[in-house]
Amino acid sequence: MQKVYLSNYELDEAKKIYFDKLKLRLQTEIVNTWDALGRVTTKPVFAHLSSPHYNSSAMDGIAVKSEKTFGASDRNHITLTEGEDYVVVDTGDPIPREFDCVIMVEDLIKVDDRHIKIYQSSVPWQNIRPLGEDIVENQLIVPSRHKIRPVDIGALIAGGINTVEVFKRPAVGIIPTGTELVEPGSELRVGDIIDFNSRTFTAQVTEWGGIPNRYSIIKDNYKLIKDTVLKANEENDVVLINAGSSAGREDFTSSVISEVGELIVHGVAIKPGKPVMLGIINDKPIIGIPGFPVSAYFVMEEIVKELIYSYQCLETEERKIVNASLTKRCMSSLKYHEFVRVRLGFIGGKYVATPLTRGAGATMSLVNADGVLEINQHTEGIESGTEVKIKLLSAEDKIKNTLVCIGSHDPIIDIAADIMHNRNKKYFLSSSNVGSTGGLMALKTSETHMAPTHLLDMETGEYNVSYLKKYVPGKKICLVKCVNRIQGFIVEKGNPKNITKFEDLLRDDVKFVNRQRGSGTRLLLDYNLNKLNIDPQKIKGYFREEFTHLAVAAAVEAGDADAGLGVYSAASLMGLDFIPVCNEEYDLAIPEEYMDSEIVKEFLETIKSEEFKDKLDELGGYDYSNTGTIIKLQELM
Amino acid sequence: MQKVYLSNYELDEAKKIYFDKLKLRLQTEIVNTWDALGRVTTKPVFAHLSSPHYNSSAMDGIAVKSEKTFGASDRNHITLTEGEDYVVVDTGDPIPREFDCVIMVEDLIKVDDRHIKIYQSSVPWQNIRPLGEDIVENQLIVPSRHKIRPVDIGALIAGGINTVEVFKRPAVGIIPTGTELVEPGSELRVGDIIDFNSRTFTAQVTEWGGIPNRYSIIKDNYKLIKDTVLKANEENDVVLINAGSSAGREDFTSSVISEVGELIVHGVAIKPGKPVMLGIINDKPIIGIPGFPVSAYFVMEEIVKELIYSYQCLETEERKIVNASLTKRCMSSLKYHEFVRVRLGFIGGKYVATPLTRGAGATMSLVNADGVLEINQHTEGIESGTEVKIKLLSAEDKIKNTLVCIGSHDPIIDIAADIMHNRNKKYFLSSSNVGSTGGLMALKTSETHMAPTHLLDMETGEYNVSYLKKYVPGKKICLVKCVNRIQGFIVEKGNPKNITKFEDLLRDDVKFVNRQRGSGTRLLLDYNLNKLNIDPQKIKGYFREEFTHLAVAAAVEAGDADAGLGVYSAASLMGLDFIPVCNEEYDLAIPEEYMDSEIVKEFLETIKSEEFKDKLDELGGYDYSNTGTIIKLQELM
Repeated sequence: MQKVYLSNYELDEAKKIYFDKLKLRLQTEIVNTWDALGRVTTKPVFAHLSSPHYNSSAMDGIAVKSEKTFGASDRNHITLTEGEDYVVVDTGDPIPREFDCVIMVEDLIKVDDRHIKIYQSSVPWQNIRPLGEDIVENQLIVPSRHKIRPVDIGALIAGGINTVEVFKRPAVGIIPTGTELVEPGSELRVGDIIDFNSRTFTAQVTEWGGIPNRYSIIKDNYKLIKDTVLKANEENDVVLINAGSSAGREDFTSSVISEVGELIVHGVAIKPGKPVMLGIINDKPIIGIPGFPVSAYFVMEEIVKELIYSYQCLETEERKIVNASLTKRCMSSLKYHEFVRVRLGFIGGKYVATPLTRGAGATMSLVNADGVLEINQHTEGIESGTEVKIKLLSAEDKIKNTLVCIGSHDPIIDIAADIMHNRNKKYFLSSSNVGSTGGLMALKTSETHMAPTHLLDMETGEYNVSYLKKYVPGKKICLVKCVNRIQGFIVEKGNPKNITKFEDLLRDDVKFVNRQRGSGTRLLLDYNLNKLNIDPQKIKGYFREEFTHLAVAAAVEAGDADAGLGVYSAASLMGLDFIPVCNEEYDLAIPEEYMDSEIVKEFLETIKSEEFKDKLDELGGYDYSNTGTIIKLQELM
Repeated sequence: MQKVYLSNYELDEAKKIYFDKLKLRLQTEIVNTWDALGRVTTKPVFAHLSSPHYNSSAMDGIAVKSEKTFGASDRNHITLTEGEDYVVVDTGDPIPREFDCVIMVEDLIKVDDRHIKIYQSSVPWQNIRPLGEDIVENQLIVPSRHKIRPVDIGALIAGGINTVEVFKRPAVGIIPTGTELVEPGSELRVGDIIDFNSRTFTAQVTEWGGIPNRYSIIKDNYKLIKDTVLKANEENDVVLINAGSSAGREDFTSSVISEVGELIVHGVAIKPGKPVMLGIINDKPIIGIPGFPVSAYFVMEEIVKELIYSYQCLETEERKIVNASLTKRCMSSLKYHEFVRVRLGFIGGKYVATPLTRGAGATMSLVNADGVLEINQHTEGIESGTEVKIKLLSAEDKIKNTLVCIGSHDPIIDIAADIMHNRNKKYFLSSSNVGSTGGLMALKTSETHMAPTHLLDMETGEYNVSYLKKYVPGKKICLVKCVNRIQGFIVEKGNPKNITKFEDLLRDDVKFVNRQRGSGTRLLLDYNLNKLNIDPQKIKGYFREEFTHLAVAAAVEAGDADAGLGVYSAASLMGLDFIPVCNEEYDLAIPEEYMDSEIVKEFLETIKSEEFKDKLDELGGYDYSNTGTIIKLQELM
């Protein structure tokens, strides 16, 4: 069945239509002041009591009547009698009504137990902390629509305010639907999808101050969905219903909303997120969130967040925007306002933004994103190198202390990152896997500090140097030796098909899984096939490309392939067998200008550390005898 | 008894000594992934499962073996048989093992129920979403020491991670001590102090991710304090003990810590906050927090926050710093590193910082502060006009949308602020009460947008204009008429002393409470006394100065004075009687350059609104017939 989107409203227009129609009924409640952290006042709050609520001594000394002190001087001491003329007071003690000032203990001359002498006169209210000095009864403490902070709680209680009227947090019902959905921890069968969207929504609603109520997974059954929607509508202020991600199956959500309420907007011109549904049932909002996790994320961020904030009378805070240079061309449809997740690097004093996978199912693109690039509906795309505005998702400090590492991937990069961060909590590493050649291109466009690379020159058999000369001409690059690593065939446990050499890949019963063009491992394969005069076209699966060692191993583990070329650690992590075929040099290319930065120095110290070497031994398949050796390449050019 | 501070360590030194000695034992726990929002990972988390965990169709269509399609073309259709050559698949459906690609429904020609024809060949893996496309088994999802966000929860669950190991939140015992302390809501007697510090600490600890456990108030009794400290030490990871605020009474806290543990630091060179105690009992931290609320706040912010973050392996985020021009000279002691609370205004495109009350007891200075100015230990002070660095406490957006109003105070300013904020949630108003003359000085130094003023010219009997000419010469000022208000005597209910005219203030049985010099009300008093030839020196209480109408009323209410001059609303709010004596003009002076700004326009609309006038009627004592009339003063000069 083909899905039909009923509308393609622009986002702001859709929100306006919906919110206007919705007419939110804000509810209030009275809470104890000490439980009011983060709650929002419905009206200005004025003090009930003064603080201090009595005149108190600001000093240790005696309380006296000032007129009794008039005329006292160095030459004319005045003697005062306890009980009649004065009483002893400590700081904070109340001043008895008959006295009007305090003389501090340092200015007193003791005569006997009941008498003292003074040698200067006092003025009324001297050394008295008057009633209401901090807070006066009826004084404004916090205004209306104020989000209560810890210091406000203190001041309110000091001012005698023990309860405050605040806006109610909205209760938000979250309904996951889909026959294919299963709860986390279930035994997974092919075709099952773990429901995780509803857990992300729960956390988002919590962060935004709402009260999430997650319902159990509802199968794709019209009556079940309808009953649950009606129940959730009754039990909550807002309902979020998460459609199954399959577009090839009848979607009941829109029909249910239309039957029991009104579907105001179905389809908004944003990507991801377009199939959103904005409905109203019994004057309460119900929002149909698309099934793809990235679509769901943007609908939550762009629409639901504002709704939940509105119940609390809060404005959503604007995310900070920075200028960054876009490292890759980004095409976009004229039909949609597009949200592109980007990774940000702070390279050579400026931000560079690298677009991440744009698929709506790419959960990891949300985890890895530092910011969002918005491409307007009426823009076809943005050229690489353009300065763009990026809405920040990560803290600026963190981005500025992140070592960017783009190129060939090996699990040891993640391990080194972890050790570095534990050595110095300030520093982070962000690694993107684009293969060795991709890393060199990133060096050229200054979008990375460092490019791990293992490119074998087909003619000379030498690693990396000739490629650097070719791809990054004119840049002064240092090649830091990282590890020699063993590449081999990743095969099923026990190697049932007995694959031991490149020639075996030609066999009819052997299905291969390859790495993408431009990756060092692909070059290594092609180099060996070429040497052996093997026609790659004759290898079954040669055209199936995966982007990481782990993905190759996963394909073998799943039985989709019998062999792939990769590193030992990938095979070992997946519980597969490994048939070594050759050694290769896995190096780090770093522009000389970054070599002196603190973060690069910290990383180089890290890979030379005993802790890192211990980890390499644990993983196996790595030789670290040259680790950390620096070759300055400009000398070679 | 005099208090002796044992040390005067610099803050960083004290923290280093203490944290080094403390050797925090970080504890970990396993939590469900869906309950892990905001928790911090103890180690890198790698996927258990691939997502998707099977090869699935990316399209609606049929799954086929690609080799069966080779050779198909427009002129050579190939017929396929269901069950043998293909199966029907929807988007998301698993691909049976024997097939290796998907042909989309648009490219199929139906022959009959069991047969279809195709007219182009397919390549392996076409239209298949391969296993692990989003997340591959063993791939890193989040690194160690990572604070878990909603998107991480989704990705972790998608990757088959249902529990995560995180650092334990520290349990923080909070012990309020002091015989004078009472719980909020108690019947207050003179000398009682409501305990509110412990409630502020509770909220702070919550905000910082700790688990607060507040104990009941403990009287000043050595054994009771010792027993509670030991109990709290056993039940929590951290103990905070809050000394009574009285310095004139024996302080048991330091003795208890020294007896049952070790007092590492007693006294740090910060102000406020110097008497802090940093101790260790049974290897766990105990911190003695000073009693004054502002001292307590800075000890919490500067020391306890870092401690609580450390348990969670988090770095405290740095507060943003802005440059601002200091509006008043700020002297400081060479002995202490001082934290000065400031109010920030964004005036004419730059920040101005006005120091707030510096007393350690000034709770409201924390509520009203937008930032903190730190004055180094070895600096004597900072001159007015100096550009200083301010650590922000408020959001920059909020400060930039705040109308600054410094000058004479009337409750109607708070009311107008509230109405304005409800009309347009974006805008805020910050009012500081420094009297009319103070407001004009603030106009001169460009630290305010607006100065409410009611200054009576003793010679001409005219309001405000001559003062503006004198205090703000050369500036183009608009005088916006606000209200005519009635000033009168605020007296006890029933006016028992029958005070009806200025001459009555001379009576022996009448105690007066005055306003501060420079305030419009003081000038009004002096103007009238002068006209009547009354010697102010002869009025009892003439020298007792309060800073607001409410403070004057509070003094009368408490019986400290029999009469004060003030506005009707202050008397009425306090349930006192009011004897009108004259009318005066309460105007708003606004530099012409700000008159066109959106926020000033919004404020002027507000005071002309029906809602505002209704409120004035409700309060009584205000005439709004000229409200909003603008007099451009430069024309008069």
